[in-house]
Amino acid sequence: MKTKITQMLGIQHPVFQGAMAWIADAGLAAAVSNAGGLGIIAAGAAPTEIVRDEIRKAKGLTDKPFAVNIMLLNPNADELAQLVIDEGVQVVTTGAGSPAKYMEQWKQAGIKVIPVIASTAYAKRMERMGADAVIAEGMESGGHIGDTTTMALLPQVIDTVSIPVIAAGGIADGRGLAAARLFGAEGVQCGTVFLSAKECNIAEQYKQMIYKAKDISTVVTGRASGHPVRSLKSPLSRELLKLEGHIETRTLEEIERITAGSLRKAVQDGNLQEGTFMSGQIAGLVKGDSDCSTIIEIMVQEAEAFLRNAPSLIG
Amino acid sequence: MKTKITQMLGIQHPVFQGAMAWIADAGLAAAVSNAGGLGIIAAGAAPTEIVRDEIRKAKGLTDKPFAVNIMLLNPNADELAQLVIDEGVQVVTTGAGSPAKYMEQWKQAGIKVIPVIASTAYAKRMERMGADAVIAEGMESGGHIGDTTTMALLPQVIDTVSIPVIAAGGIADGRGLAAARLFGAEGVQCGTVFLSAKECNIAEQYKQMIYKAKDISTVVTGRASGHPVRSLKSPLSRELLKLEGHIETRTLEEIERITAGSLRKAVQDGNLQEGTFMSGQIAGLVKGDSDCSTIIEIMVQEAEAFLRNAPSLIG
Repeated sequence: MKTKITQMLGIQHPVFQGAMAWIADAGLAAAVSNAGGLGIIAAGAAPTEIVRDEIRKAKGLTDKPFAVNIMLLNPNADELAQLVIDEGVQVVTTGAGSPAKYMEQWKQAGIKVIPVIASTAYAKRMERMGADAVIAEGMESGGHIGDTTTMALLPQVIDTVSIPVIAAGGIADGRGLAAARLFGAEGVQCGTVFLSAKECNIAEQYKQMIYKAKDISTVVTGRASGHPVRSLKSPLSRELLKLEGHIETRTLEEIERITAGSLRKAVQDGNLQEGTFMSGQIAGLVKGDSDCSTIIEIMVQEAEAFLRNAPSLIG
Repeated sequence: MKTKITQMLGIQHPVFQGAMAWIADAGLAAAVSNAGGLGIIAAGAAPTEIVRDEIRKAKGLTDKPFAVNIMLLNPNADELAQLVIDEGVQVVTTGAGSPAKYMEQWKQAGIKVIPVIASTAYAKRMERMGADAVIAEGMESGGHIGDTTTMALLPQVIDTVSIPVIAAGGIADGRGLAAARLFGAEGVQCGTVFLSAKECNIAEQYKQMIYKAKDISTVVTGRASGHPVRSLKSPLSRELLKLEGHIETRTLEEIERITAGSLRKAVQDGNLQEGTFMSGQIAGLVKGDSDCSTIIEIMVQEAEAFLRNAPSLIG
């Protein structure tokens, strides 16, 4: 499936793998890139040295383009901004802040810059700033989210900007990719479905929770503190929602105490009691072990079949 | 556009008009039915006599099928259930509760029963109960909402039931209808876009708020009390969110006091200070006055064009 984004980035399929902190490492990103999609290493809150190691590891695992995602509010954002230039990374996706400060140096280095956005206003701002594309992420996504859903956000963003738009949130199969293309998106970014890939190095307990998930298995915590996060319902998310009912300084501290390290506890330890298992609402469609190549091949084949048969839906 | 639902109901276009309480009256429903869609009278919390008057008024305005929506937790649900039989209404949509109690008598009367659902489990339950179709409503919708978005809910419901599925939430134009068809939906239900119809008898202030709305103009209140409602941001919604930060008996009473009648204040009075202006997240796509016939004709024509051109998106 050729689109403006596959041509811009020199990739085979218009499928990005979402930058899941603690999860999207060199192994997963390289597997996705080798499968013809765009693998993305999530810098997350990792020290610069660790991110450098991951980038170099990915280079050893694939000769295809891959991206690094930088959370711009992180204390080491300056270092990471320079690191991707030094390491010759070809694509950067950004979140949690504005890339304004780095845009010129990245463009001079030939890096394609693709911010994740959750509103039309921010999409417009990124386009004016020189972004090469934007990822419009609906609030059905896992992890940190905005307010607007993919179905509502995507057409409004597409009407607002002229640069390519990548759809994210609620997409795990060929139907989602086909629908996104029909709206005018040049590609999709998927997170949750890649949790099922054998190249995705998360605790087996986490994978099993994803496979068992249904449409109503996720919950949003953190709305009270202004940092909403979607994850699978769990003992920790229940506790958080209870605490969030009565926000005071004391409970904010308690929330910070019990959430600190909870993502690591989920990803590495599969700690069912104390982990935060981030997941999109689409987890109900993710049914069992696969690998990146199969996930992407089937998604694209299905999408092509849906698009090919679409005229028959006119009736 | 012929689908299973147009054939089942004997309508021309697979477009339902959402049952907006205080808004979806005989005039709007008849206009939508005359335009080839399915108009729906919202019984809301109205007395049975009023609903009877609206049904009879609609019969005088159209000879096409129209529906009545019944909120099953309302005190007069028994009366309304009998009313639709007595008045020969052909289609009933239901919300806020289970139609179990009335299913047999409705089926015997030849009424098509189409519950609004927000989860796969409820969709399955409705299918087992004998529902003729379900309306899968995403949380981007205006008014009372569930948790799951259209993009995530629709494919999961379609995978779960065999009866026709109507997509609702975030749909206001041909792209939304085409995408819904591509997912396998047999039709769509739209609310917000019909607020712009000249046959929609709401305060001019409300219409102007819709036209000015952007992608981030709605907000969800009532999460704290377990009855989430989406409406346009307004002085009242801000006040509610503030109160909801500290739920106690006192504030619950205060919330009830300031929300009582607030929908009527929006719809009839256009009271910008004290009204609740329900709206979906898709309001940003609704730009100005139209009429039901134009809204539906353009939506269907656009959807057909998108579906016809879909094979070219394979690239």
